[in-house]
Amino acid sequence: MRHFRLVLEYDGAGFEGWQIQPGETRTVQGALVQAAEKLAGGGEVVVRGSGRTDSGVHAAGQVASVALETDLDAEALLRALNGNLPRDVVIHELEACDEAFDPRRQAKTKSYAYAVWNGALRSPLRAARYVHVPAPLDLPAMREAAFILKGEHDFASFQAAGSDVENTVRTLHRIAISGDSGGEVFFEFEGSGFLRHMVRNLVGTLLEVGQGRREPGSMTGLLEARDRGLAGPTAPAHGLTLAWVEYPENDPGETPGK
Amino acid sequence: MRHFRLVLEYDGAGFEGWQIQPGETRTVQGALVQAAEKLAGGGEVVVRGSGRTDSGVHAAGQVASVALETDLDAEALLRALNGNLPRDVVIHELEACDEAFDPRRQAKTKSYAYAVWNGALRSPLRAARYVHVPAPLDLPAMREAAFILKGEHDFASFQAAGSDVENTVRTLHRIAISGDSGGEVFFEFEGSGFLRHMVRNLVGTLLEVGQGRREPGSMTGLLEARDRGLAGPTAPAHGLTLAWVEYPENDPGETPGK
Repeated sequence: MRHFRLVLEYDGAGFEGWQIQPGETRTVQGALVQAAEKLAGGGEVVVRGSGRTDSGVHAAGQVASVALETDLDAEALLRALNGNLPRDVVIHELEACDEAFDPRRQAKTKSYAYAVWNGALRSPLRAARYVHVPAPLDLPAMREAAFILKGEHDFASFQAAGSDVENTVRTLHRIAISGDSGGEVFFEFEGSGFLRHMVRNLVGTLLEVGQGRREPGSMTGLLEARDRGLAGPTAPAHGLTLAWVEYPENDPGETPGK
Repeated sequence: MRHFRLVLEYDGAGFEGWQIQPGETRTVQGALVQAAEKLAGGGEVVVRGSGRTDSGVHAAGQVASVALETDLDAEALLRALNGNLPRDVVIHELEACDEAFDPRRQAKTKSYAYAVWNGALRSPLRAARYVHVPAPLDLPAMREAAFILKGEHDFASFQAAGSDVENTVRTLHRIAISGDSGGEVFFEFEGSGFLRHMVRNLVGTLLEVGQGRREPGSMTGLLEARDRGLAGPTAPAHGLTLAWVEYPENDPGETPGK
């Protein structure tokens, strides 16, 4: 078996998330396994990702590893795999790596982007990738709330209901909110790791702050409460993109989708 | 009958162009007529646009007029029409106008944008709105060619084959090409009017210049030849967006899609 590290871009609209599932379910991991199996001559194929993305979530720079039997060099393997992959997923980079490379455990930080269309009326040209929030957003209030959420905290209030992760402490190195009320608004999150639905729950909560339904200062109590029932709703998947994943030693290189 | 001026945004992917057609064909003008007919109580409805867009071409700021019998004021009519329109088209602005307003004849300038993804590999997140050109583009050469095309010229070489327009002289006030080779490349065109397929034929020709298959200086002879057979191919529709339309007296206002 030979081992390779990949950087991937995909449009999440046509996938039921990253993780392979039994049956006909279309997933990104499943598409990679199928593409690699065609080259592995019946041999085993193992594909691992830096983490799961949910159904409908996009990626500009997801990192994965693939292990397979092949005589191809990295350049030819990149071409062959891309030729076998469907149109809505592509491998931008591929290089040989150590067998020990674990894309999930070794990830140092992950970055996500979330896109909101804040016009009063729907925008057909943005419908696939932006979530429409028609009410005017108070961006300074949202930034005040984001400032409180930044740093190392127990994010239990922001993890998906029903999760049973033991350690819910994570570090958010960066939350940036750019744009103007009445136009495109972009959120950027960079952190040491993210709980399930954490970015979408943070966005859903910050959007409530932006609409005056929560005080920015209430974030402190919300973190302390460790109660998912107190945070805002989970913002829709189609606004979210996994932008890139960073590793301590081997930098995954340029993010092609940015 | 009362008369209104509209500014429209639409995703062209689901429409066979602007112009209404008999039968089941889905067009933007047809969708507007249907939406207005539901409000006109059986009365006649007339919808006119600033010009046709081809099948698959998008608009961020198309201008149109609609005439119908209605008691609604402009604000209520905007809401009612948007409620009757499908998801992929929206009216951003609507105001009462003179019966004499002719969106096509009175248009002073039109502006188009064309988007190219110039990465070596396909980009799933850009597939719907960017045309993929994998070969590296020489942007300075393209700008040199664009400089020759700017101004008042006979653009017969760039009109759709089979067109029988008598006067093929148009003025291109602006051609701008932004971006870097190896990333997103944007074309902007502003002109007094455009022949059928003219923007897409200009883009197809400039992309050949960018790939070294034509000299920038050859644009002079190409204009003089007045021969469609000598220009480049028609670039695909899905990269093209009608950005806005300007009128001499009544400025159509902010372009919502920019």
